[in-house]
Amino acid sequence: MKKSLLITLLAFLFYHVNSQDNDKIIKSIFDNALTDNTAYKSLEYLCKNTKGRLPGSAAAAEAVEFTRQALIKAGADTVWLQKVPVPHWERGYEECKIISSILGISELSISALGFSEGTGEDGLTAGVIEVKDFEDLIKLGKQKIEGKIVFFNRPADNTLVNTFAAYSGSVNQRTLGASEASKYGAAAVVVRSATQALDDFPHTGVTRFAENVKKIPAVAVSTLDADMLSRWLKLDPSAKIRLISTCKSFPDTWSYNVIGEIKGSDKPKEFIIAGGHLDAWDIAEGAHDDAGGCVQAIEMIRLFKSLNIKPKRSVRAVMFMNEEMSGTGGRTYASEAASRGEVQYAALESDRGVMSPRGFSFDTDSLRLKKLQSLNVMFAPFNIRDFEKGGGGSDINPLKASGTLLIGYLPDAQRYFYYHHSANDTFDKVNFRELQMGSAAIASLVYLIDLLDL
Amino acid sequence: MKKSLLITLLAFLFYHVNSQDNDKIIKSIFDNALTDNTAYKSLEYLCKNTKGRLPGSAAAAEAVEFTRQALIKAGADTVWLQKVPVPHWERGYEECKIISSILGISELSISALGFSEGTGEDGLTAGVIEVKDFEDLIKLGKQKIEGKIVFFNRPADNTLVNTFAAYSGSVNQRTLGASEASKYGAAAVVVRSATQALDDFPHTGVTRFAENVKKIPAVAVSTLDADMLSRWLKLDPSAKIRLISTCKSFPDTWSYNVIGEIKGSDKPKEFIIAGGHLDAWDIAEGAHDDAGGCVQAIEMIRLFKSLNIKPKRSVRAVMFMNEEMSGTGGRTYASEAASRGEVQYAALESDRGVMSPRGFSFDTDSLRLKKLQSLNVMFAPFNIRDFEKGGGGSDINPLKASGTLLIGYLPDAQRYFYYHHSANDTFDKVNFRELQMGSAAIASLVYLIDLLDL
Repeated sequence: MKKSLLITLLAFLFYHVNSQDNDKIIKSIFDNALTDNTAYKSLEYLCKNTKGRLPGSAAAAEAVEFTRQALIKAGADTVWLQKVPVPHWERGYEECKIISSILGISELSISALGFSEGTGEDGLTAGVIEVKDFEDLIKLGKQKIEGKIVFFNRPADNTLVNTFAAYSGSVNQRTLGASEASKYGAAAVVVRSATQALDDFPHTGVTRFAENVKKIPAVAVSTLDADMLSRWLKLDPSAKIRLISTCKSFPDTWSYNVIGEIKGSDKPKEFIIAGGHLDAWDIAEGAHDDAGGCVQAIEMIRLFKSLNIKPKRSVRAVMFMNEEMSGTGGRTYASEAASRGEVQYAALESDRGVMSPRGFSFDTDSLRLKKLQSLNVMFAPFNIRDFEKGGGGSDINPLKASGTLLIGYLPDAQRYFYYHHSANDTFDKVNFRELQMGSAAIASLVYLIDLLDL
Repeated sequence: MKKSLLITLLAFLFYHVNSQDNDKIIKSIFDNALTDNTAYKSLEYLCKNTKGRLPGSAAAAEAVEFTRQALIKAGADTVWLQKVPVPHWERGYEECKIISSILGISELSISALGFSEGTGEDGLTAGVIEVKDFEDLIKLGKQKIEGKIVFFNRPADNTLVNTFAAYSGSVNQRTLGASEASKYGAAAVVVRSATQALDDFPHTGVTRFAENVKKIPAVAVSTLDADMLSRWLKLDPSAKIRLISTCKSFPDTWSYNVIGEIKGSDKPKEFIIAGGHLDAWDIAEGAHDDAGGCVQAIEMIRLFKSLNIKPKRSVRAVMFMNEEMSGTGGRTYASEAASRGEVQYAALESDRGVMSPRGFSFDTDSLRLKKLQSLNVMFAPFNIRDFEKGGGGSDINPLKASGTLLIGYLPDAQRYFYYHHSANDTFDKVNFRELQMGSAAIASLVYLIDLLDL
């Protein structure tokens, strides 16, 4: 496209979208959100009454029913459940000790990883080898690893301002460490929690085993205890770990995505969705991850309805099930939308916590990014400035193949991994205004991109 | 100045300040800050061991000594105390009940305002008149107010994204309400807490009496209890409040500003200062307000010294005493600097909490603002984008008359007033990374403005 044409187009869009009326509508969205506690109360309910809502659990079923009703109360034109196949894994009793003939015995703060194998009630006791990465496994070889507990202890790089990059740089120990160590005959793995925090909370998450690899026990250990364990092993390399984890996998079962829709006035067969995921780790209230994202999507429906905003396209709030374990909610949504021949115009996910909004990331080409960045000025009064290229979110990624514009909501991320996948992810860690600034930002962006024809 | 000259000048500054070396130095400041817990540990000490450090208290003396030592440990070339006259007011026993012959009795969560008068141990009981502002006092007149307890109940405007503007819009009830009501013969005042939160915490602060106005008892009431009180008064206008507050003023006394300095290599008689205030409300740990600002200033010294950064000008960390009650620390610093003939080139204050950094405000003319905004690009890698015109801070404002560039550190402000002046302002509400991102931002800005010649 010629540059002059692009400028003309952007000027047109700017005129079209940046009208005084739109200014007023955006302001009314923020005003309403900042003075209404519906979303905050819903968040409290999900945290306090559906804590630990892993896919397939009774708490998850309660969360499905609660958000279904919340969408009805928010005024959605239609609300329905979409059946989703989900795994069913349950934590059991767990206990972990480091035992040294020199230093004594000390308890370690641990949490079994999702999909990990149990030890049985009798537990297991074995020597420990500390490693930093999978290269270390190759160097050590089967002879040194077999029968041992492998302790992955690579810390997150705290100098990275982008905390998600720091997380990505350390999390493969958790997601693949057990499978890799099992190939060398490891008895179990203990993994340093994937967090920037130095604290007593183990941060859990899934671990995945490659095909034909023996499943073994795997637990996350708090960063403080990982440091202690490492010190002990330096002082006494023959120290042993005693681990009991009676977690278990059960046959797959069913759960639901929860969907609420406002029918579009002009293009009802085109859809803009905003959502989060309803499931959360069993040890957490899941306030930041991701009840917040869910209630923000429901809040978008409430805001549109109570302000009588009538989108051209149909707008959906989607509470995805099973983001944490195997992503079947997102895949089910995408495949059923495709089979119904629906056009998913845009999809936004809020799954980075509910801190103050900094902006949005757009998974799109540079032309569409430029158009979207022309909306930036509308958000300046709310200190929301970052409109950047980047990922959407794992639940909406399956829509990418069909050309859907994917959008990630970006709150300030400095403290997110202090909560993530841990018992520290609780309702009291969410601030009302930070939640609602995000709700308003999401509703406003959905309103504005509905005016664009990308 | 001609526009072309300005552009040349800005280009020169840009080249001068935006060198690769400076990029590296700024990165090293952030890297060091994000991996060092000295400031966080100091914050913990101040919160846990010097809680409630009002001017003149033993806790304040302990905070003075602790930060003096912290500055020495940080490597300051010289550390000294600057004597400051301070008021001495102490809270006593306090209790407040609403008593209705229809509705019963309910306790109200209150906190006496600084400088307010006590009721004596027997307390007082009086009828209540709810008002929104001083206009209401004029309308009601002496006849209706005399002998009554005036209940100021104007809430903060929660639709304002700028929470400091919302605070400013409601706080005159607290600072001047008692004095105004006393003019009409009020027996006491109860003031809705100046906060966006709807919670059980009373948020205290000073109240000031005009000359020749009788000092009366004055307390802040939590916002939840303000709402309850207002409901009760609607149902039973004859309900009475029983208030006991045995707070007392004592003769003025002495405390100290704490100052640590790195001598400038090139212009040692010019000074750049960064600081916060050391005193805090007696009911609070004062984590966000303002131990955080203090430890960030000490951290700047530690960062410069441990990274071997040698500023051209002398750099000072200043812990001001008595910001909360009457600002004598800031005035003493300014007057003594003037009497020594020192040039205070720039002064930065961190007194808006210790959330993630968003930017800085500059109290200066548009030409200098443009120069300063040219530094913005250096902070983009750290998501610090807002370089705007605005106030410095109350402790550094006395330097304004002599032409000092005043700078306010701007962290994200959505949740600040949830903590401000209340028992909710505690160490656990501060995140390590949010603190240290701010420390690094402040040290980096001081480093860069030292390179400029404004």
